[in-house]
Amino acid sequence: MVRIAVVVTARPSWAKLFTICEALQAMPDVDLQIIACASALLERYGNVSKVIQAQGFTLAAECWSTYEGANLVTSVKETGALVSELGTAVIRLGPACVVVCADRHEVLAAAIAGSYQHIRVAHLQGGERTGSIDDRVRDSITSLADLHFPCTEQAAFRVYGLTGSQHIYRFGCSAVDMAKRAISEPPVTSEELGGAGAPIDLERPYSVILQHPVTNEAEQAYAQMWSTLMGSEMCGQRVVLWPGQDAGADGISKAIREYQAEHGALHTVRNLPPSRFLKLLSQCEVLIGNSSAGIRESAYLGVPVVDIGTRQWGRERAKNVQWVPHDVTRIQQAIQQQSTAGFYPRSTLYGDGTSGQQIARVLRDVAHGSTRPGEVEIHGHPV
Amino acid sequence: MVRIAVVVTARPSWAKLFTICEALQAMPDVDLQIIACASALLERYGNVSKVIQAQGFTLAAECWSTYEGANLVTSVKETGALVSELGTAVIRLGPACVVVCADRHEVLAAAIAGSYQHIRVAHLQGGERTGSIDDRVRDSITSLADLHFPCTEQAAFRVYGLTGSQHIYRFGCSAVDMAKRAISEPPVTSEELGGAGAPIDLERPYSVILQHPVTNEAEQAYAQMWSTLMGSEMCGQRVVLWPGQDAGADGISKAIREYQAEHGALHTVRNLPPSRFLKLLSQCEVLIGNSSAGIRESAYLGVPVVDIGTRQWGRERAKNVQWVPHDVTRIQQAIQQQSTAGFYPRSTLYGDGTSGQQIARVLRDVAHGSTRPGEVEIHGHPV
Amino acid sequence: MVRIAVVVTARPSWAKLFTICEALQAMPDVDLQIIACASALLERYGNVSKVIQAQGFTLAAECWSTYEGANLVTSVKETGALVSELGTAVIRLGPACVVVCADRHEVLAAAIAGSYQHIRVAHLQGGERTGSIDDRVRDSITSLADLHFPCTEQAAFRVYGLTGSQHIYRFGCSAVDMAKRAISEPPVTSEELGGAGAPIDLERPYSVILQHPVTNEAEQAYAQMWSTLMGSEMCGQRVVLWPGQDAGADGISKAIREYQAEHGALHTVRNLPPSRFLKLLSQCEVLIGNSSAGIRESAYLGVPVVDIGTRQWGRERAKNVQWVPHDVTRIQQAIQQQSTAGFYPRSTLYGDGTSGQQIARVLRDVAHGSTRPGEVEIHGHPV
Amino acid sequence: MVRIAVVVTARPSWAKLFTICEALQAMPDVDLQIIACASALLERYGNVSKVIQAQGFTLAAECWSTYEGANLVTSVKETGALVSELGTAVIRLGPACVVVCADRHEVLAAAIAGSYQHIRVAHLQGGERTGSIDDRVRDSITSLADLHFPCTEQAAFRVYGLTGSQHIYRFGCSAVDMAKRAISEPPVTSEELGGAGAPIDLERPYSVILQHPVTNEAEQAYAQMWSTLMGSEMCGQRVVLWPGQDAGADGISKAIREYQAEHGALHTVRNLPPSRFLKLLSQCEVLIGNSSAGIRESAYLGVPVVDIGTRQWGRERAKNVQWVPHDVTRIQQAIQQQSTAGFYPRSTLYGDGTSGQQIARVLRDVAHGSTRPGEVEIHGHPV
Repeated sequence: MVRIAVVVTARPSWAKLFTICEALQAMPDVDLQIIACASALLERYGNVSKVIQAQGFTLAAECWSTYEGANLVTSVKETGALVSELGTAVIRLGPACVVVCADRHEVLAAAIAGSYQHIRVAHLQGGERTGSIDDRVRDSITSLADLHFPCTEQAAFRVYGLTGSQHIYRFGCSAVDMAKRAISEPPVTSEELGGAGAPIDLERPYSVILQHPVTNEAEQAYAQMWSTLMGSEMCGQRVVLWPGQDAGADGISKAIREYQAEHGALHTVRNLPPSRFLKLLSQCEVLIGNSSAGIRESAYLGVPVVDIGTRQWGRERAKNVQWVPHDVTRIQQAIQQQSTAGFYPRSTLYGDGTSGQQIARVLRDVAHGSTRPGEVEIHGHPV
Repeated sequence: MVRIAVVVTARPSWAKLFTICEALQAMPDVDLQIIACASALLERYGNVSKVIQAQGFTLAAECWSTYEGANLVTSVKETGALVSELGTAVIRLGPACVVVCADRHEVLAAAIAGSYQHIRVAHLQGGERTGSIDDRVRDSITSLADLHFPCTEQAAFRVYGLTGSQHIYRFGCSAVDMAKRAISEPPVTSEELGGAGAPIDLERPYSVILQHPVTNEAEQAYAQMWSTLMGSEMCGQRVVLWPGQDAGADGISKAIREYQAEHGALHTVRNLPPSRFLKLLSQCEVLIGNSSAGIRESAYLGVPVVDIGTRQWGRERAKNVQWVPHDVTRIQQAIQQQSTAGFYPRSTLYGDGTSGQQIARVLRDVAHGSTRPGEVEIHGHPV
Repeated sequence: MVRIAVVVTARPSWAKLFTICEALQAMPDVDLQIIACASALLERYGNVSKVIQAQGFTLAAECWSTYEGANLVTSVKETGALVSELGTAVIRLGPACVVVCADRHEVLAAAIAGSYQHIRVAHLQGGERTGSIDDRVRDSITSLADLHFPCTEQAAFRVYGLTGSQHIYRFGCSAVDMAKRAISEPPVTSEELGGAGAPIDLERPYSVILQHPVTNEAEQAYAQMWSTLMGSEMCGQRVVLWPGQDAGADGISKAIREYQAEHGALHTVRNLPPSRFLKLLSQCEVLIGNSSAGIRESAYLGVPVVDIGTRQWGRERAKNVQWVPHDVTRIQQAIQQQSTAGFYPRSTLYGDGTSGQQIARVLRDVAHGSTRPGEVEIHGHPV
Repeated sequence: MVRIAVVVTARPSWAKLFTICEALQAMPDVDLQIIACASALLERYGNVSKVIQAQGFTLAAECWSTYEGANLVTSVKETGALVSELGTAVIRLGPACVVVCADRHEVLAAAIAGSYQHIRVAHLQGGERTGSIDDRVRDSITSLADLHFPCTEQAAFRVYGLTGSQHIYRFGCSAVDMAKRAISEPPVTSEELGGAGAPIDLERPYSVILQHPVTNEAEQAYAQMWSTLMGSEMCGQRVVLWPGQDAGADGISKAIREYQAEHGALHTVRNLPPSRFLKLLSQCEVLIGNSSAGIRESAYLGVPVVDIGTRQWGRERAKNVQWVPHDVTRIQQAIQQQSTAGFYPRSTLYGDGTSGQQIARVLRDVAHGSTRPGEVEIHGHPV
């Protein structure tokens, strides 16, 4: 029996971790320890910890660390708090391996908590490029990690360049596993969607808007969201999701509230299970904003995407994505084109929907092999 | 007037930061903000914050963060505490640039505190290799930093590989500046040295022993120190310095106390200003242990060094260093050879003694240019 | 010149601290150091730190400490964080005296930060009784404090019983100073009020609802708020203020949102300067909820108050207050009676509107006298 | 089955908690959860957590929180850290009751962690008076606690005055249980004692010196210890125990080291199990210093005590204690008198040696009765 800890720091990361956890839980020789922390515990950000439990998992630990305010100071303070909290949790749980995902500051905190205690850190989604400060945090996590599960070929090469590691496994992005499943699930109905604001009929055409703040553009977040909302007025029905937590989130929320107070045309949604969010995407005319789902899952789904601003800038992308800056006219043009284009053919740039299984198998083998970093004997797909 | 913050996390880093601070303080258009934190504030580790003030600098902030216990858990907790404390200090001081040095976990905390608040981080000594977990922390800091001051050519290439940055400046190691000055200073006398244990006469031949714990060998630290002390019995007079703070420090201290209780042959020293420590080295027969001074400053001084164990493993080294494992016989042989060899010719592998001035000039120019990362116009020595 | 630090932990405490700070700032020999922390920094709770600055004060320090989630765990974690943050701020500012107010957990954190560093702690509003856990926290703060400014005679006696202190000064509640001034200020207009939901006309009769969560009834907060909203349906126009931060706040906010989604009858307000809030009260038909303003300032103003539930239970009260449990029918009856009763005669139970001046004078004298606790020479009103 | 958590913050508190834990562990319906924190985990302070485990208990949680430096700033920071850490531990363990002991700042942290999460807090040793800042912290803890186990009649009256609580149980001090048992244990031998410095023969007369720093006299700690060491030179053999952790501990340790370097006459001891320490006392000529054992356990043992300085100032004391200030001559005179006096008759002022059993029974009953504060049905000795 080996213990493998998986750190869930936010709703979006669960979309990537779910199929891995599912596979690990099905393994009789693995004790899966899910640690929910930061915004994963908060109602305001969809409380994915409840979703996790509703899906039949148990939480091994909860680490509260999110400060109110969501500015540059609180980003630092909550990183400090999370390093400390996760340190306590990890030493108590004693896993052979800690799995972390992506590039947020909470994830660096988790990597520190693991690696400083000489517990093997496995990092998903290393080596990508977005052109923002997230690149630095992501590389910083990669530098601390022992095992690497980059999603694309280019990303795997970059991880190799950073670390020279023998333990780089490219199995695609596990988020795509969910996208693959979503295809065969029943459609999201208006009742299931819930939410507030303008009434919505999901059987008629609709667009989805999801725009997160960009860390080093926090002060422009408010204006950026206004551009998106004004630029998307041609869309008949608009489903707007509240942004994830980050410096600038308040600005985006404020723009939504004010726009809505003026126009009342938006249907706003706070909580949606990731799998249902993907289904919602798979039914929509066009996805607008800067969500990573527009780049990753949508590649597999073939959803037309208007990707706005710098957040996903450097990311590899399939043909379904059209990029525009925060400019009302450019956003309008792009939505026009993408609405006309319709769905794109499937792309496996970010995986073929079997990543979770493959990643889980390597994690189990590694955990069995040795708990001392640097002595791993198993080799994955050669870079 | 530009503000430049320099974070001093431990006694050894002051040896590298001193000539930079000296140069910055002499610049009329620079407001130097020294932040002393972690073991830099503690008597037990030589309280370098007092040394700093005695040298005519003022402290802009003190950040207390060191936990008692010095184990893997407390390493994590103090990193968390320091991220939070430095976050508060840095936002209050508002520097254009934060200067951090080397590869300890406190330094990663400082890099996080700066970079998460979008303050430019300058990193000294990136790109080196020691073969220990420090490599990961060092690279992790490099990934977060905006400006890089690696010491050697190889290190500069590695930093370039990690970051692709245009802002890599190779001016050597500022610690060597102190070594250069030490040559012309008056010798350390026995009275000045102070300390406890066996009497010492510095006018007669003596050896210096300085051995720090290695983070992921914390449990062997006690045995390792015993090997060093037993292997060095042939040395007539032995000056032993207490180890720096890290998981395992207690083991080393215990070994020294127990060996001393049995043999009484050691002269132990707790506090020595860095400049006087270098002078002490420049007078000694052989330096034994795993101090970085054996690799860097000693290269310039030509001191014969017996470097033991893995701590400095991957570091580039000049001809004056002989490496041995933690083996009593091998240590004896190496000391024998190095005692016979005598002093080596000067090497500029780690710099020519003018690094501080050159680094300070770039820092000033960068601070004047812009406080937004990534817009720096000045280029240093091309990689 | 003496330094006096005043810790503002939340919007309501500024109502009590304002006239004291005003008097201290007018003293040429006092350096007033306002430390804003916890919810005093947050938009969501009216960001009183901006109000403070808009009133011509400067902030000496900001201490971010509020965790998202507002539950029992985060209450503890934010107390820990605040003790640490305020510790750093207080040692840096070096005041002769730290002034804290009332009974929230943040205030105990401030008292610890001061008293553990041997800085004299002055406590406002000690000795009161509400029947909730706040009583314990309040007494705990009183035990740590050096100077006591209880508001009523009964409270002063209780403080004397707890401490035996010679330094108990009963000058009434400084919040009443603001109530006194509010009387002569221009009325609050609908435009000035702002807010969302149902339109409001402040020239016509309206009621004010302000209900905060009770710490050890956090799980009932949602149901309690529903009772209040249902019980107050007879009121023509209702101005509802969002609750302050505390475990249970989310429940209250949810009840307001849901009630509003169903009935749309409420006018909700997030931000209102304390002085304008008092003016709003002085114009209203009846104040409903559990705000301390219903007990203290309203006594002086003579506003009819329906005080619901346990939050203000044990507090001394003037004739204007009618208490009811969380019961729709009882709430309805009480509102009916109070609406009919009209305004009550002025009561000075909680002060006559000159407290701020008197408290500030004692603080200044104490700060001048000595910075060592227990050596204060000045005696106030004998208990 | 009920869960009862016992918080051990330092070596001295285990002396008070041991017999209670022993009794709780023997109860089949109680799940005893020992939480070791702060200096209870540190080698430097005798690592009582190891002692606890060697005695057959298991630790339910470890909370690391002690900062190096032991000054006023770090006292505050470690209180903050401990509130946060214990908060996490307590919520995870979910006890019906948290037992805390005495008056140190770590204990207030524990009381906060429990009471803010609405877990019943039981406080030992409330209501005592020492005349130092500890009085405030002790009363502050009493204010937060739900159950009170004061040791003496006077203390019980004071607790009643502070709280008006119905749940005050006076069973004496459980530390005395250990003293009672020590009487019939085999004597401490020189070999068992271990230690360093001058040789010791425990079969010949010896004195014991144990002096802790006083929080608000931290700067005098060094000089105070010198007085004690100089004033006790007439004692033939002197066993000196290293001080507990607190601001000023470094000064005392420094005085011991320096005195020893000069005179070499002391036998210094770092680790001694509490039960053996009491046995050591029961054999000694005179106990010198300011340890609480001089007041409490020694009353029962009848050991002659010279109590120095303010640390135990206001404490009730039996006839065996003679108080003197930090004055070499006065210390000499008192030691002379006490050496001549010989052992005193047994006093039960602080209990008769059965407190642990009695306290454990109440704790169990309370834990069974209800986990909601304020609903306890059981009454102890009426005040």
